[in-house]
Amino acid sequence: MTLVLHDLPADVQSAVAAARQRVSDLHAELPRNGLVVWTAGNVSERVAGADLFVIKPSGVSYDELSPESMVVCTLEGEKIADGTPEHLKPSSDTAAHAYVYRHMEYVGGVVHTHSTYAVAWATVGEPIPCVTTMAADEFGGEIPIGPFAIIGDDSIGQGVVETLRDSRSPAVLMQNHGPFTIGRDAKAAVKAAVMVEEVARSVTIARQLGTPIDIPGDTIAALNDRYQNVYGQ
Amino acid sequence: MTLVLHDLPADVQSAVAAARQRVSDLHAELPRNGLVVWTAGNVSERVAGADLFVIKPSGVSYDELSPESMVVCTLEGEKIADGTPEHLKPSSDTAAHAYVYRHMEYVGGVVHTHSTYAVAWATVGEPIPCVTTMAADEFGGEIPIGPFAIIGDDSIGQGVVETLRDSRSPAVLMQNHGPFTIGRDAKAAVKAAVMVEEVARSVTIARQLGTPIDIPGDTIAALNDRYQNVYGQ
Amino acid sequence: MTLVLHDLPADVQSAVAAARQRVSDLHAELPRNGLVVWTAGNVSERVAGADLFVIKPSGVSYDELSPESMVVCTLEGEKIADGTPEHLKPSSDTAAHAYVYRHMEYVGGVVHTHSTYAVAWATVGEPIPCVTTMAADEFGGEIPIGPFAIIGDDSIGQGVVETLRDSRSPAVLMQNHGPFTIGRDAKAAVKAAVMVEEVARSVTIARQLGTPIDIPGDTIAALNDRYQNVYGQ
Amino acid sequence: MTLVLHDLPADVQSAVAAARQRVSDLHAELPRNGLVVWTAGNVSERVAGADLFVIKPSGVSYDELSPESMVVCTLEGEKIADGTPEHLKPSSDTAAHAYVYRHMEYVGGVVHTHSTYAVAWATVGEPIPCVTTMAADEFGGEIPIGPFAIIGDDSIGQGVVETLRDSRSPAVLMQNHGPFTIGRDAKAAVKAAVMVEEVARSVTIARQLGTPIDIPGDTIAALNDRYQNVYGQ
Repeated sequence: MTLVLHDLPADVQSAVAAARQRVSDLHAELPRNGLVVWTAGNVSERVAGADLFVIKPSGVSYDELSPESMVVCTLEGEKIADGTPEHLKPSSDTAAHAYVYRHMEYVGGVVHTHSTYAVAWATVGEPIPCVTTMAADEFGGEIPIGPFAIIGDDSIGQGVVETLRDSRSPAVLMQNHGPFTIGRDAKAAVKAAVMVEEVARSVTIARQLGTPIDIPGDTIAALNDRYQNVYGQ
Repeated sequence: MTLVLHDLPADVQSAVAAARQRVSDLHAELPRNGLVVWTAGNVSERVAGADLFVIKPSGVSYDELSPESMVVCTLEGEKIADGTPEHLKPSSDTAAHAYVYRHMEYVGGVVHTHSTYAVAWATVGEPIPCVTTMAADEFGGEIPIGPFAIIGDDSIGQGVVETLRDSRSPAVLMQNHGPFTIGRDAKAAVKAAVMVEEVARSVTIARQLGTPIDIPGDTIAALNDRYQNVYGQ
Repeated sequence: MTLVLHDLPADVQSAVAAARQRVSDLHAELPRNGLVVWTAGNVSERVAGADLFVIKPSGVSYDELSPESMVVCTLEGEKIADGTPEHLKPSSDTAAHAYVYRHMEYVGGVVHTHSTYAVAWATVGEPIPCVTTMAADEFGGEIPIGPFAIIGDDSIGQGVVETLRDSRSPAVLMQNHGPFTIGRDAKAAVKAAVMVEEVARSVTIARQLGTPIDIPGDTIAALNDRYQNVYGQ
Repeated sequence: MTLVLHDLPADVQSAVAAARQRVSDLHAELPRNGLVVWTAGNVSERVAGADLFVIKPSGVSYDELSPESMVVCTLEGEKIADGTPEHLKPSSDTAAHAYVYRHMEYVGGVVHTHSTYAVAWATVGEPIPCVTTMAADEFGGEIPIGPFAIIGDDSIGQGVVETLRDSRSPAVLMQNHGPFTIGRDAKAAVKAAVMVEEVARSVTIARQLGTPIDIPGDTIAALNDRYQNVYGQ
């Protein structure tokens, strides 16, 4: 039996509408921050109070997106009826997003990009060491590498979940592929996607200049704790 | 005898107008994606149902282009009469585009740029290895190097056709020169031009970090097949 | 006893308003010059004729800033009452800015960023050598490295002041962290922040090409003296 | 005796106005093409039919420029009376521009920038080899290095003229400093400034990948001749 959007309770329909607006708006941050070319990146957000999430439609360019074109899916990654214009399929990465929402209940947002420097680290299969205060603040340690996994089943989602479950980092670099990031909502996951590329870039350049200086592990932990709990409004 | 645009059948004139609009619009993607400086790149598209294609005028800057300024040419690369304002010559790369259309009938669009990282690989004469899933999706293998060829006769066109004829890749890096890309239409060729630069960039950076991990050949083939046949709407 | 903005003399209130306008406007230069991602950078300016300065609110994005949202602080880094909307905290770097204003009375503006190339030099802990005329003009010598210091007390401010007190350079690279710059006003400090990234970038690339040629010390001093005293209107 | 603008013949005043408009507009190309930060670059153009040229005012930001703020100078680099608002001084590089106009009568435009990659080559003192067809087209050989010269007298202008007099290249990299480019008018000199940075960038990256393949000298000469005489409208 397929779920139908306009049969859902009014508060869920309202939460869907709000999530669609946010996710549509947040996609503009991907090209704006230089994280994507063409259509190669996507944002999703869990719908509060329902087993649903909203995600980018597949292969649509960023400046053609609107709240109405965001696809509504179940946590199994199935598009619900009346959840978007009939002709739009959800992102080809929907199964990976859905797997994360099913297995990490505190995650409210997921982002996937192929941002250039993060992809480079993913391609050599090396975690990005935590050698800047920005990295300590946001990631609380190295940015880990996930397994090489092929699109088409749950293997990407599994790789993301298994790598991030025991990590302070909200970002994983899937080998030869690119970063997936998570957050309490879509905005936090987008921020992590922005930060993983910036950290990848600065550490790449540091390596070209010489040997990055280590930051002690307990200092990293203290910076991360402070940033996650004190920073911002 | 020179072809005259307004003597052609109405449906061909209509197809010419549509192609001019698309090709004019698509040129905006070149500077937007950082693929060109000054006037150093051009897009063309075959006119459906006629032995014609439309291409950028030579030496005109991207923000001065309009559908009306796109030049209409025969498959021999000759500008047709009444096909554009009298004072505009077609791109200096017209002969290469024309050669591709004459010899690869399934090609509907051609793009040439001097995008920075792709030019760098072309200058050392080394194919870009297929070490990212993005590269596997779009190119299905390494991005090959074409011969060094001089502008002025058919040698560039021949080099493009001979290199791409037996390749899954829609892009070739002409040695010391830059990329040519092909597609079923101009938009697909522009997408390939965007992707070749992005892949060139990420693999360059991966090399600076260490040794890129190979993706097995059959996995590359599977990713490419899926992407070309399933992705998008 | 907390200072209250609308109890201050009229000329101070007017100076606060002018500083807020300038500091709000100058924040736009940070993303425009590619110095920041997300909210990772801040500008402050001393208020003429008062022991106050204005600074960015914490964690607010650059395109949401307005003169009204700039936070007014004492030189001890305490937000004054009625100095901004109640819900806004000053930048998490406020203590460092305040320390600089207390200890360097000729400083009227302070900027902190995590600009990419400057962070890379900070991460290897190496001063940027003065090998371009632009660097000689703006910095009058190498751009020095400051100590590794943790946010939360005066140690960052101390590191900035101790490093810059005896230097011609208006910029210091705090180890593993990023640049702090100073100036006679906020605009001058922003200019130094722009220049430190540009110099970091060009010298990084020069190193990749070969060995930068030294500029003799007396020539550096002469260029710096001329630029600081003759250039501009 | 100081020249006064409104005492000049009507056709010269008209040529001055046209040059001011062009030079003001062309300055927008410098930030647009990523060639400058802050105010670090300038364009000038010779006035047809008079021993005058117009140039950027010193230290004014690019988005505050207007035709009226362009400074009119004699070929000795002296600002003429009534040639601009009283408070604006010409660019601090005016003496170098003036020297070029006095000694190279076929030069109608001069541009100076500190574009990043060109500065890097200037800093290691190595000419940029001609290994791409774009470089052959525009520069007709390597882009030469000029002497290290200090601002304040004619030594920069002399270095530019002596280096370019016997070169096909319209660009010279002044050691530890940056590029100066020349052209038949200001637009051609701006184009050369754009191209020198692009060539510097692609050859830097090629070097990181391996060994650039040489282009034979007679092929370079043929490409350059064709491009200078056939390309464009």
